[in-house]
Amino acid sequence: MRIGILGTGDVGCRLGTKLVSLGNDVRMGSRAAPNPKAAAWAMANGPKASAGTFADAAKFGEVVFNCTAGSVSLEALKLAGADNLGGKVLVDVANPLDFSKGMPPTLTVCNTDSLGEQIQRAFPDAKVVKALNTIGNEVMVKPRLVPGEHDTFLCGNDPQAKAKVVEILRAFGWKSPIDLGDMTAARGLEMMLPVWVRLMGAIQTRNFNFKIAR
Amino acid sequence: MRIGILGTGDVGCRLGTKLVSLGNDVRMGSRAAPNPKAAAWAMANGPKASAGTFADAAKFGEVVFNCTAGSVSLEALKLAGADNLGGKVLVDVANPLDFSKGMPPTLTVCNTDSLGEQIQRAFPDAKVVKALNTIGNEVMVKPRLVPGEHDTFLCGNDPQAKAKVVEILRAFGWKSPIDLGDMTAARGLEMMLPVWVRLMGAIQTRNFNFKIAR
Repeated sequence: MRIGILGTGDVGCRLGTKLVSLGNDVRMGSRAAPNPKAAAWAMANGPKASAGTFADAAKFGEVVFNCTAGSVSLEALKLAGADNLGGKVLVDVANPLDFSKGMPPTLTVCNTDSLGEQIQRAFPDAKVVKALNTIGNEVMVKPRLVPGEHDTFLCGNDPQAKAKVVEILRAFGWKSPIDLGDMTAARGLEMMLPVWVRLMGAIQTRNFNFKIAR
Repeated sequence: MRIGILGTGDVGCRLGTKLVSLGNDVRMGSRAAPNPKAAAWAMANGPKASAGTFADAAKFGEVVFNCTAGSVSLEALKLAGADNLGGKVLVDVANPLDFSKGMPPTLTVCNTDSLGEQIQRAFPDAKVVKALNTIGNEVMVKPRLVPGEHDTFLCGNDPQAKAKVVEILRAFGWKSPIDLGDMTAARGLEMMLPVWVRLMGAIQTRNFNFKIAR
């Protein structure tokens, strides 16, 4: 499968590398190309990895991952282009975190709206699926880093797009992703971030995850 | 120990009954006494259970539980009286849920503030501890209802008050409550409610709980 990754941070690199290792062709996009981080990532990941602009990556991908900082995601997606995203599965991994007032971060949107919903409204022809935003980037692609069973969640308005994302999550090692329903569930998923940050402080590791005991 | 319970709903009754069964003297408070629900609860729970106004219950308790609806908690606590709460451990179990716009509920306060913080600011002489708000009321007092290990959280500004609440949680069956720090962590704990509600819908039971796999 051809996959576009928007964003060259830890999340984008981690997901890109895993997706290449699973046999996909992956193009990493950044605001301006050439971008040193994207070029280094592509170099390190062999012939199935490439780099370009946000628009290049979005056009290339059959599935596109939004791995940009939540505070600039809408702007980055505009640069990627509505035409390049139309009809495609757009996996929104971002969190609308605001670090401008120091730690712990607050959210730029929550409660009655969410970044996932904002993206779906701004790009009505994309099939947006919120996923992986509640998990540290190392654990995203290697669930076994955290002992025992634990959970990953997704939501979105398009059942087929969610089925495609579940397939990708299973390839990452997630056995039974929990589907929370339509995109309004992104409010709850994004609002898990404040407690995630406090938990990281309390237990002194990023390698933890939520399990829904039942 | 003498315990005051503010609120006659499912949470107040469940906690009150458990606390009586553990050998405590418990007074349940309501806006106006006599209150039929509080009277029935007291009758059903024998000589260690009693009922009165919010102020009666707050005055009676060495530890006081706020089990009122989050949307009216500040008002209920004012009726309980700052003098009756001063110097005491006030366990805030409430969530600031707003059901006025239908399901799923939104929060009346979140992100940059929380109900726990509002209560601590309004009653600076009380030792407020946020606890149990992320757990369905049956599971609160009977963790074994949910299979396997799973977690309960608390936060607050007073270490001794938190130690007292940990003691009570252990008596309920919670082995290792996770202390998330000062009262600002109540933001994260209360913001878990939206995903809690979606999870309840997705897995069709209230008898689930978060475990922090690590």
